[in-house]
Order: sequence, then C-alpha cells, then structure tokens
Amino acid sequence: MSDHPVHSSRRALLMATGALAAAGLSGPAASQSLREPPVPPTGPKKMLGMVVFEGFELLDIFGPLEMFGMINDRISTVLIADKAGPVTSRTGPATIADVSFADAPKLDIVMIPGGSGTRREVNNPAFLEAVKNLAEATPQVATVCTGSAVLAKTGLLDGVKATSNKMAWQWATAQGAKVIWLPKARWVEDGKYISSSGISAGIDMALALIAKLYGKDMAHWVANRAEYRWHDDPTDDPFAAMSGLG
Amino acid sequence: MSDHPVHSSRRALLMATGALAAAGLSGPAASQSLREPPVPPTGPKKMLGMVVFEGFELLDIFGPLEMFGMINDRISTVLIADKAGPVTSRTGPATIADVSFADAPKLDIVMIPGGSGTRREVNNPAFLEAVKNLAEATPQVATVCTGSAVLAKTGLLDGVKATSNKMAWQWATAQGAKVIWLPKARWVEDGKYISSSGISAGIDMALALIAKLYGKDMAHWVANRAEYRWHDDPTDDPFAAMSGLG
Repeated sequence: MSDHPVHSSRRALLMATGALAAAGLSGPAASQSLREPPVPPTGPKKMLGMVVFEGFELLDIFGPLEMFGMINDRISTVLIADKAGPVTSRTGPATIADVSFADAPKLDIVMIPGGSGTRREVNNPAFLEAVKNLAEATPQVATVCTGSAVLAKTGLLDGVKATSNKMAWQWATAQGAKVIWLPKARWVEDGKYISSSGISAGIDMALALIAKLYGKDMAHWVANRAEYRWHDDPTDDPFAAMSGLG
Repeated sequence: MSDHPVHSSRRALLMATGALAAAGLSGPAASQSLREPPVPPTGPKKMLGMVVFEGFELLDIFGPLEMFGMINDRISTVLIADKAGPVTSRTGPATIADVSFADAPKLDIVMIPGGSGTRREVNNPAFLEAVKNLAEATPQVATVCTGSAVLAKTGLLDGVKATSNKMAWQWATAQGAKVIWLPKARWVEDGKYISSSGISAGIDMALALIAKLYGKDMAHWVANRAEYRWHDDPTDDPFAAMSGLG
C-alpha cells in the first residue's frame, strides 16, 4: 500500500468503527484489538467463588464463568458446595465442587446461582448459614436468577434492592418480605450486593462486574471475544412485561 | 371490571404484544404464555449427544444444554468422551462424561463443542475416528466454535458450507481445505450439518435447532423462559467485521 502507515491504520480503524456502529455495537470496543485486552493485568489475582448445589441451573453458573474465564489471567474461580465432589444440575449434566464451604479460600467475589435446587436449599439451615457466612466475609456478593431467593432467606438482603427470575417471581420474593424487590431489571446493584434476573441475565451481570473491576472497555472486549452481545443497560428488561411484571 | 371478558383479555394481549414489539422482541412469543409450551410433547424423546474433551469451552457446551434443558420432556442429553468420568474445561471447572464413545447410545443429534482442547484433538486419530463414526451414524450433526475444526479434520465437511470461531479463524479453516468456510454467519446449515461461530453463537444455533424440530414459536418460548434474546437471523454476525473477516 502506498498510504502513509498512520493514515492507512487510521482509515482501517474508522472503517471498522463504522461497521460496528452500523451493527449496533458499542463504540469503545470498535477501536480495540480483539487479541490484546484494553487494560493490562495489574495487582494480585482476584478469587471468585461460585456456590453450587444439587439442582443448579446450568447457564446461571457457566454463563458468568465463561465471561470471567476470558480474563483468568486476573481472576481465578473456585466452586464451593456442601462438600467437594460432583454436583448435578437441574437437567442432568454435572460439575465438580472444588471445596466445601469449610475449606473455601478468602474470596473477592461470591456468586450464588439459581435453579430448582433453591426450593430445597431455602429450607436447609446449614446451607443458609454457610451462604450467609461466605456473603458476610466477601466484599462483593452476586446472585443469578433464584440465587437471590436463597440470599434473601438469610436476611442479608433486608432493606436491599434486588431482583430475581421472572418465572419464579412470587416464590422468590416470598423468601424475603423486607427485600426491596425490583421486577423490571436485567440486574440490580445495591451496595455490595448485585443480583440478576433469570438465567441468561447472569451473563450481562457478570460483564457489569468486569466493567466495575476493569472498566467498560474490558467488559466489551470480553463480550466480543465470546461473540456475545452484551446488554449493558441494567434497566433494559423486556422479560418483565412478558411475565406481567413490568 | 365491567369489560366483557373476551374484550378485556384481547386488550391485555394487545397491550402485551405492543410492549414486546417496542422492546424489539418477536410477535409470536408475545401471545404465548410462558408457563405452557406452544407445542405439546409428541412421539418418543429424542437423544442429544454432547461430545466433551479436556480443554472444552464452558459456554460452547452449557449454552446449548441450557436451551435443550428447557424442553427435557422431549429431549434427553448424554455427555460423551474418550471415557466416562470427569472432564476439565479450558478454564478449570469440570463436567462429567456419562459414557465413552464406545458406549454412546443411538443419537438424534450430536454436538461437538470448541475450546483450546481442539488444538490437541485434531492431532488425535482415535478421537477423530470416534467423532467421525458418531457423526456418520447421527442424522443431525452440530458444531459450536472450533468444534467445526475437529469435524473438518475428519473430512466429513469436505464440500460442505460451515463456519467457526472468529479469533481462531486461520487455524480452524486450515483443518479442512475443502470445506466451504463462511466467515460472516452466526450459524450455517448445510444438509445434516449445522455449525455456529464463536462460543455464544452456539446458544442461537441451539435455538435454531429447536425451531427446526418443534417450530419457531417453541424456540422463542425456550429463549423467553431463559430470559435470553435469541438472535434468530443466521446472517446477522457483527463479530466478523470486528475480526476483519466480513
């Protein structure tokens, strides 16, 4: 090419930006290489603890873990359950808990998923006590789907704004009468607590946590590498109306 | 209410439809209850086989399995690997293979995910032979992400249109010089083969398979229950431009 390299590169950038804007994707991501993250790793690695239990919902766990797994040079993941070993999802496929609650390391983020198993766990005092202890000891507490029902049952969400799965709304909200439940929200952040609505919403919330930790460009970079269209507006929730809730 | 009940119900339906249309969601889903599927189960349950291997990508597997898990009254899932037992993902969290290739049941659909482990498996003749045998014996063969590189290496995609992950495009397409690789596609269907682009695209392809099996209303119902916005146009792929491929 006879173009001056700076001009040529700038033109390519502008063309790429235009293509992305036409596709309805965000501006900042357009100017970034998908190869290199926009922010280099700094400081010690963070530790994310994912709580698991029999009857967890697959995507509640593995949607967020896919996004955090894109930056596993700066965040490690540990799966925590009653005891280490296999744990079966609602629909059959299993995962393996790394440690018991008693052996959980110090966490930077704890995440509580949903699933049909939450119906049992809200009546399991030992589980609720373990979740409560973990949440109290951790500076950032996140829930996906009916995970907020479990956390509500511990009392920690009393007076706190939160959301939950739309299909299970009546049951989930009944687990915490003092929680300020918001039905129309992709996710809700209030102090150290962040809760997402049903299943897939956990992916968008995980990206919001990545944005909080490393900036919004980093969250877009992660989403783009996963070929995922991040819904980055927490108030954009078409599923509330669909369930007669918003 | 003094309204005639038919008018009242029709008005509620129209209001719900309007709210969904404003949110950019599809029409048919708006008129369906999220409680009951639009199509009742009929005929024998189908069997979906998900191939797993060390270094699989989490969302490649669990995105599609979440969607199929919403209709597990009509589709069962089996995880198939070199041998039954634990299999670790690229980023650490593990799942558990139900059976070995030798013990796999007769399948209606086989799905091959991607992940860093595909770089090893394209050079593993025993794995390629097992995948080839399974694909030849199964009427519907699906790949997610670099799963298409593995299938391409078996030769079964020669002369077939397919796509793959954008970040791994050069490597993936080099595994099958005779494949008709299409870079700008959310997913590509050609005969009994259907392939999706990177990671998250597997969710949209899984919904397309559900639409093929049970109709588009059913696919929207599944997506809506998972609070997932299905990208139902296979040609809508903004990530190709982002990677300089479209």
